[in-house]
Amino acid sequence: MLSELPGRPCPIAAALEVVGDRWALLAVREVHLGAHRFSDVLAGTGAPRDRLAARLKDLVAAGVLERRPYQDSPPRSDYHLTEAGQDLVPVLGALKAWGRRWAVDEPAAEEELSPR
Amino acid sequence: MLSELPGRPCPIAAALEVVGDRWALLAVREVHLGAHRFSDVLAGTGAPRDRLAARLKDLVAAGVLERRPYQDSPPRSDYHLTEAGQDLVPVLGALKAWGRRWAVDEPAAEEELSPR
Repeated sequence: MLSELPGRPCPIAAALEVVGDRWALLAVREVHLGAHRFSDVLAGTGAPRDRLAARLKDLVAAGVLERRPYQDSPPRSDYHLTEAGQDLVPVLGALKAWGRRWAVDEPAAEEELSPR
Repeated sequence: MLSELPGRPCPIAAALEVVGDRWALLAVREVHLGAHRFSDVLAGTGAPRDRLAARLKDLVAAGVLERRPYQDSPPRSDYHLTEAGQDLVPVLGALKAWGRRWAVDEPAAEEELSPR
C-alpha cells in the first residue's frame, strides 16, 4: 500500500489516507466521547450530513469504527471504536494539545473536551 | 474562534481548521524533514501543485510556516517551520505510530522517515 501513495512513502501518509479528513477525526472524537448514534455524531461534529455518512462508511471499511446493532425492529446500529480506533486517541490528544496552544484564543475551551 | 466552529467547540476542531487537510500535514512533514523549497515539498508530498500552493499559503497565514528569502535576483524564498509548526511534530509522531501499526502492510517503511 505504501508504494501506491503519491510522494514519500511513509506511515504518516498511510495514516492520512484513512484519517486525513477533518470530519473523520472529529467523528472518531465524538465516538470516543460517547456519541454512538449517527444523529449524535452529526450534532457533535457539525459536519455536513452526507460527508459525515461517507466518512463513517470509510472508517468502518478501514476498521477504525464498527457498527453494533442496538435494536431489532426496525434494525438499528450505532458506532463504536475498534482497537484501531481506540489507538487514534493519542493522535487526538496531540491535536488537542496543539490546538489549545496555537489555535484557540478563548480560555473557556477546557471543559468542552470531557466525555459527556 | 471556537464559537465559530460547527459542532462541539474544542481545541481539536480548532487545530483541524488549520491542519485538517492531509496535504497540510504532509507539507509540514516535508519541511520538518528538510524540504524547504516548493518543488521539494511538491515532490515529497505528491500533492497536486495548486492544492499544495493553496495549503502552503494557508499555513503561512496561520503562522505554521514562514517564508525566508534565500536569493535576491530573482527574489526567491523557501519554507521553514515556525514555533507553532515545530509544535506539530508530536502530531506527526502520533500519526506515524498509528500508521505504522494500522495502515502499513509493508515492513520496509521505517527508514523512509529519517530526515534526508
